[in-house]
Amino acid sequence: MSAAARDPPLAQEDLLLAAAYVYDAQYNRNIPFETSPQAVRLYYLYNHWTMQAATYFFIFVDLFLAVFEDPAVYPLPFLATSLVEVLCLLVFFGRLVHFAKVTPRNVFWKDTKNICIMIAILVTLIDLIIYGALKISNINSIRWSRFLRPIFLINFAESRQIRRVFRSIRNTLPEITYVFLLFMFSVLMFSLMALKLFGDRNLRTVEGSPYFTNYLEIVFDLYVLVTTANSPDVMMPAFDFSWWYSLFFITYVVINTYLFMSVFLAVVYNNYRNHLKNEIRKLAYMKHHKMIEAFNILKVKEGTEFVVQESQWKQLVKLVAPDINTSHRELLLRVCDEEQKGYVDKKSFVRLADLLNIQVIAMRIQTHPLEHWMPHVYNSAVSLFIRSMVQHKGFVWTYDVIILINAVFIALDEENPLISYAEWVFLSLYILEILLKVYTYEPRAFFAKTQFWNWFDTSIIIAALIATILNASLKSASQYNSQQVLDIVFILRVLRLIRIVDSIQRFRVIMNTLINIVPTMLTFGGLALVVYYMFAIIGMELFQGKIQFFPRNSTAHHALECGNPALKDSMFARAKYCKNNFNDITSSFVVLMELTVVNQWHVLANGFALVTHQAAKLYFIAFHIVVVIMIINILIAFILEAFFVEYSLEKSEVETAIEKKIQELGVGIQEEELRDGKLIDNMETSENDLGGEEITKKKSKGLMFKIASKRYRTVDALLQRMFEAEILPEDDGPSVDEILNLSPADLYPKNPTFDSAA
Amino acid sequence: MSAAARDPPLAQEDLLLAAAYVYDAQYNRNIPFETSPQAVRLYYLYNHWTMQAATYFFIFVDLFLAVFEDPAVYPLPFLATSLVEVLCLLVFFGRLVHFAKVTPRNVFWKDTKNICIMIAILVTLIDLIIYGALKISNINSIRWSRFLRPIFLINFAESRQIRRVFRSIRNTLPEITYVFLLFMFSVLMFSLMALKLFGDRNLRTVEGSPYFTNYLEIVFDLYVLVTTANSPDVMMPAFDFSWWYSLFFITYVVINTYLFMSVFLAVVYNNYRNHLKNEIRKLAYMKHHKMIEAFNILKVKEGTEFVVQESQWKQLVKLVAPDINTSHRELLLRVCDEEQKGYVDKKSFVRLADLLNIQVIAMRIQTHPLEHWMPHVYNSAVSLFIRSMVQHKGFVWTYDVIILINAVFIALDEENPLISYAEWVFLSLYILEILLKVYTYEPRAFFAKTQFWNWFDTSIIIAALIATILNASLKSASQYNSQQVLDIVFILRVLRLIRIVDSIQRFRVIMNTLINIVPTMLTFGGLALVVYYMFAIIGMELFQGKIQFFPRNSTAHHALECGNPALKDSMFARAKYCKNNFNDITSSFVVLMELTVVNQWHVLANGFALVTHQAAKLYFIAFHIVVVIMIINILIAFILEAFFVEYSLEKSEVETAIEKKIQELGVGIQEEELRDGKLIDNMETSENDLGGEEITKKKSKGLMFKIASKRYRTVDALLQRMFEAEILPEDDGPSVDEILNLSPADLYPKNPTFDSAA
Repeated sequence: MSAAARDPPLAQEDLLLAAAYVYDAQYNRNIPFETSPQAVRLYYLYNHWTMQAATYFFIFVDLFLAVFEDPAVYPLPFLATSLVEVLCLLVFFGRLVHFAKVTPRNVFWKDTKNICIMIAILVTLIDLIIYGALKISNINSIRWSRFLRPIFLINFAESRQIRRVFRSIRNTLPEITYVFLLFMFSVLMFSLMALKLFGDRNLRTVEGSPYFTNYLEIVFDLYVLVTTANSPDVMMPAFDFSWWYSLFFITYVVINTYLFMSVFLAVVYNNYRNHLKNEIRKLAYMKHHKMIEAFNILKVKEGTEFVVQESQWKQLVKLVAPDINTSHRELLLRVCDEEQKGYVDKKSFVRLADLLNIQVIAMRIQTHPLEHWMPHVYNSAVSLFIRSMVQHKGFVWTYDVIILINAVFIALDEENPLISYAEWVFLSLYILEILLKVYTYEPRAFFAKTQFWNWFDTSIIIAALIATILNASLKSASQYNSQQVLDIVFILRVLRLIRIVDSIQRFRVIMNTLINIVPTMLTFGGLALVVYYMFAIIGMELFQGKIQFFPRNSTAHHALECGNPALKDSMFARAKYCKNNFNDITSSFVVLMELTVVNQWHVLANGFALVTHQAAKLYFIAFHIVVVIMIINILIAFILEAFFVEYSLEKSEVETAIEKKIQELGVGIQEEELRDGKLIDNMETSENDLGGEEITKKKSKGLMFKIASKRYRTVDALLQRMFEAEILPEDDGPSVDEILNLSPADLYPKNPTFDSAA
Repeated sequence: MSAAARDPPLAQEDLLLAAAYVYDAQYNRNIPFETSPQAVRLYYLYNHWTMQAATYFFIFVDLFLAVFEDPAVYPLPFLATSLVEVLCLLVFFGRLVHFAKVTPRNVFWKDTKNICIMIAILVTLIDLIIYGALKISNINSIRWSRFLRPIFLINFAESRQIRRVFRSIRNTLPEITYVFLLFMFSVLMFSLMALKLFGDRNLRTVEGSPYFTNYLEIVFDLYVLVTTANSPDVMMPAFDFSWWYSLFFITYVVINTYLFMSVFLAVVYNNYRNHLKNEIRKLAYMKHHKMIEAFNILKVKEGTEFVVQESQWKQLVKLVAPDINTSHRELLLRVCDEEQKGYVDKKSFVRLADLLNIQVIAMRIQTHPLEHWMPHVYNSAVSLFIRSMVQHKGFVWTYDVIILINAVFIALDEENPLISYAEWVFLSLYILEILLKVYTYEPRAFFAKTQFWNWFDTSIIIAALIATILNASLKSASQYNSQQVLDIVFILRVLRLIRIVDSIQRFRVIMNTLINIVPTMLTFGGLALVVYYMFAIIGMELFQGKIQFFPRNSTAHHALECGNPALKDSMFARAKYCKNNFNDITSSFVVLMELTVVNQWHVLANGFALVTHQAAKLYFIAFHIVVVIMIINILIAFILEAFFVEYSLEKSEVETAIEKKIQELGVGIQEEELRDGKLIDNMETSENDLGGEEITKKKSKGLMFKIASKRYRTVDALLQRMFEAEILPEDDGPSVDEILNLSPADLYPKNPTFDSAA
């Protein structure tokens, strides 16, 4: 099953296995299947971040090619784009070969992901050759393999999150299909009723066309009504005819828009939650199981129970996490071996992986560099006054008032020279604030990784400073405002105002939750990119060039009808939607975004149906089903779940036992360094509620341990913690086989150790 | 605290107390605070269903008055409506006095609900007098107290569910306010950015007006964009100018529409769920506590434990539920006293309330009336063939095919005489189906309360028969199709087709969940009615008569501008929205419904702002905040929660221990009546998976016990079951005071026993 199972047990190698297990739990990396030095090196190389970054770089280059390919935003010759594409394919192939080298053969070939990538590479090459050959003989064909490009994004090892969402979607499909069929049945029934009720009334729509006479058109209109996009308009002719008919539409909206759309959300959400819980529970079980296995390898008998010796434990930790320093390791040991008995029992050992997972930031309680260099000046009366002033609450309030005044000035007219002068005043005030803060607080603490708002402020201010200087110099040099630079200046100015949110405790809590969602949203962004890209490629093939955009006052033929006489008198042309076309990838993405927002999508659909064929509406309906009914509901499920986890953590103050213990140990020793701690304590109280950090101090020479802010935990990590609490540390948990049976087989096809890297 | 606590214990009265407690648990009724016969009679009278129905009747009469009051749908003189209103107020006052008679004085006066009703009655009377006096002196004033009418609907004792939702909303308010402020901050920031980016570009909207030049207008436009109502339109001028600006709008939509709107849903849902859980947990604790109290009153020592004697138990049950028959009582006793020891222990006694809550339907295994009257004919070969044919699956399939053919015929043209003839054929086929089923199955079982689809089918078919005959006779009598009758015929014909859904297992499950939601939806309907009514009254006062609807081809002055020159060239007039006005209560409700659906609400808001004042937009924004952000999210939370409860019950097969035991007992005795049971067994297998019913058979003379279908349980009942499982029957639970401290004080102001009736 794994290296330990195949090789005869050897003390040193067993330690390595255990170390690798812990390593796996910590970084989700895995042990090499062969323990020869070359395999290890290859394995570490495969998992090195530069290799992963390079893979992603080439995936995005491949996707980005659509910008340069016909229909292009910036046209490049076919030879150039195809060469780049071949390069990308080579990289993907190389990566795959590398992966095959570090994976047992049977595991590699059973993994659908690898097969998928290989087929995609092959198919793309064939398509390139055919397209190239036809191009040389001047025959236009379709680069249909571009549709397959997102497969690389999904199937490479690092996109585990996106794959999880796709698996979740696949699991939801049967259930959602039944609800969808029932929903369509309801739409068809209502359409039939509408046909009978309104069909022979000789009613006319606002545009003057016959109202509700064709069954298929009624179905489309009522489907659009579900999305509320044509809401009162579709009802008005019937409503004008008789008040009673509004009841038909109200019933329809209540049943189909409110009831069924909520049921879709419920089905997607329920499935997403169950799937997530299942996968995370599985991961937690796996980790537990591996830790038990490692423990069983290392254990020695001590009195009545099996334990791991302190020395072995230390060696193990040193091997696993060579980058943590001695005092940090001592802290961990004291958490594991509370009573300082000289050994670690099973229960504590099993939690070692979690313990290493907690990002304990070891910080020296550092003196301010200025204090170090010129203590007299830094501790002089003036300096102390400035520092206490900056630490005073009034300082924050003063700057809040300044921000508000700034907001008013921004809203005022730019042309007034007094106001453009005021901009410089505000800019220098903000710079002064940062300088004062850096003067008062320790710079390395101020710019610690966890100080989100400090980073945000500083980067915005510096960017604004650069942009404003650039703008001013451009203006004085050429009497010319660069529009791009000016736009950036405007945006940066407004962004500066966001900081005021951070001054109010309640807003901070909400903002922190929102920031917490960001990593999860990135997964969602990947998912959206995949779906959008596929639809954009199809859309471009179907609709490119059918609708043209002409600038205002253009004298081109049919400029008002988007260059297509078929659109004459259409809602599409009247609403001036000509720029909503599929003529290049960027326009396509904007149109797809508009379709996601749903409103007026029937106008777009009708417009494109007019210039091609009525069947084109199917493309738009398909997009609505996939994106709005599936993807957006997953997004909402994401956000709901993230908020619920956040709420439950906030309320129950769920902390793992380990964190509590670190906390206790810290508090227990805290008294000793009062003076040293004070400065940072002060800073912490002002910044602390902002991040909800927990501070732990360690006995030795001004070294301080800090648990990394809750803010930076992902929803997954939070969920994992919640489920881990459910697993009792005493039992050995289910066997690996039992765990594997929990899931669809594709998750851990054969070798659980390797699949989490795969 | 309660009657038991105040009076010296007396055997007979204690029994009554316990009986009342059980009664309370069963029907949520309460014991009278005085045990004198008159008080008891008054109390029972107060809780009698006719009195409750009468109260609701007058509440709806009061609300319905808006149809007849100026601006009226059907105008009635002020004298008539005011007399009816005074009558309603008298009824409300009488009901309140009655309630005061059966409630301890201090409890009554501390209850805000009662104070609310009294103030509302008083204020309405004052308003009526002032308005009447002014009317006599020909001065027009406003009937502002009409705004208060929904207070009666909320505050009368029976609307506990609606009050609970309002309490939940009140609890959500602080949190949602902070999110809303943050959201508004975001909108204001983006508006400021938009002003700076687009303000001096000289862009024009489709209508030709300047684009994004006025800050307040930008804020409104971007607020509308959050609702997606002006989705691509508001972006198009900037997008036409430069591709890059679409990023501004996409960012805006992602943050404000998707992120913030989901956060609103999360906040509302989280709060709703917690509130609901809290209240239901409280109810469950209260019930448990009361049952313990009753047990403590009745208990006698039997060996080492305290128990309740069988005789006393029977007396108690007889007293509490006089309408259940002896064999049903025997069944309950066998569940409580499994080992037939002659007494009921504490654990079983505590569950008595739940036991009585389970709607066990006692059904005689009845022979078919025809079999009773003419056994030879009914059991003849032909009859047996017919019966086995009807019970065959092919029978259902045949009728599914018939329904599908029917659907095609409905869609075809009505004018063809062949098709209108076919209608009669289908109608007789459906009637034949029902007759055959009634012939085969026992009619009383076929029309049992739980057979939703049988009732649905039969009523639809009979209604269709009546309407078709009526239509045909009207046509032959006067050569004239009554449009109303014809409309009803059409609707009924289409409704008949719904039945096909019931033939497919997967659809049935979804449908059952949807039907399960209906009771909860009624609560939501009450909530929506309250909010709509208040907004409709305000809307009518603000906008009545400003916009007129003229039928097509009207020659009235400004007919195309809805009778108001201010609307010339407005989107409102161009989209022909003239009938969307506040000129009477029905139109107001339709407009409010359109505003709820959101699409085009800015057109409506702008239209009404044009004919009155720009500030009128605030009315529409307020409606959006209250209804779309609060109420609709509560609706979605309702539906999500209902589905999740349904899913978790479906999966975990949660059944209370009691139901399991009834099941076991039933199964244990089942063998005895094979022949008798067979017929109904057959029917049950065909109808059973449809309702998920559980059948239990009792030993004696063909009597069968059936647990009422799960389908008819409300979400509340389901939730209650889930939480009750969490309470261990062994412990006595927290004391009453502890329970009361769980909640905001208004729930059980002083006397927990009385408040649940109050």
